[in-house]
Amino acid sequence: MAHTRWLNDDEQRTWRAFLAANKLLMDCLDRQLQHEAGIPHTYYEILVRLSEVPGRALRMSDLAATSMSSRSRLSHAVARMEETGWVRRRECATDRRGAVCELTDAGLQAIKTAAPGHVETVRTNLFDQITPEQVGQLRAISESVARHLDADGRLEYLLTEPVQARSD
Amino acid sequence: MAHTRWLNDDEQRTWRAFLAANKLLMDCLDRQLQHEAGIPHTYYEILVRLSEVPGRALRMSDLAATSMSSRSRLSHAVARMEETGWVRRRECATDRRGAVCELTDAGLQAIKTAAPGHVETVRTNLFDQITPEQVGQLRAISESVARHLDADGRLEYLLTEPVQARSD
Repeated sequence: MAHTRWLNDDEQRTWRAFLAANKLLMDCLDRQLQHEAGIPHTYYEILVRLSEVPGRALRMSDLAATSMSSRSRLSHAVARMEETGWVRRRECATDRRGAVCELTDAGLQAIKTAAPGHVETVRTNLFDQITPEQVGQLRAISESVARHLDADGRLEYLLTEPVQARSD
Repeated sequence: MAHTRWLNDDEQRTWRAFLAANKLLMDCLDRQLQHEAGIPHTYYEILVRLSEVPGRALRMSDLAATSMSSRSRLSHAVARMEETGWVRRRECATDRRGAVCELTDAGLQAIKTAAPGHVETVRTNLFDQITPEQVGQLRAISESVARHLDADGRLEYLLTEPVQARSD
């Protein structure tokens, strides 16, 4: 590379603080969900994803394409959650090539049980630490970065209107 | 939980955008480093950490305590990087209990070789996507969250003055 655009001190400090905040927050979410619901955050995200689509089912290939997990991690997660009865894999009615992953009633209940503790953890460790103005700033920054990187719209569903599983 | 403080729509959208940005950015950094340097981002972070401490060496326990990786992942990473000759494990001169992990000259060279492409990726996908004002906002937000969660100062080194390995 002819001329590297090194980070200046402000950018370097921002980058390191971002890495630290990110790592600490994700570890904290994982610990809470593991402790209270027995699953890592990545599993929870898969369950939530399924809960928000029509019929609560997606072809494995579509789930993989739009998942926050890698394909191998997704397969492992789905296999484990099938054992616990939270998801079910079945053949696709309209396409013999693809298996469909479906959220079961028990899986939906698992999200509803886990959601309050998870949301409280997100609130305590992120939203309680920043001002309402900073919430807007974080959203604008995150949307800029996500839209730039998500050229194929893989995670577009995360940037459109939210749906939230609530138990109350 | 008696009364869950659910996220409002603004917070929910912010949270999802943050998750998406975060995931896409980390995947992108991983891909670039894997492609150009043959290592995941977590390995790069370990090498950088070692490059910035006196003697370029840390006890494994200290490296684990202040690492962005889990202990098992760190052990695996160090074992692999020992095979490539980028780090070396040796007994601690002052403490027989702990092995020391040392960055080798080849490891330092590996960072210097990887750094320009890595920094360019961070710049292109984060800093080029936000304004200088947003850099300050992201830093303030990240520092608030990190300091709240890092009660034991595990990642404090990421929040203090930056050091950067440069090849120019």
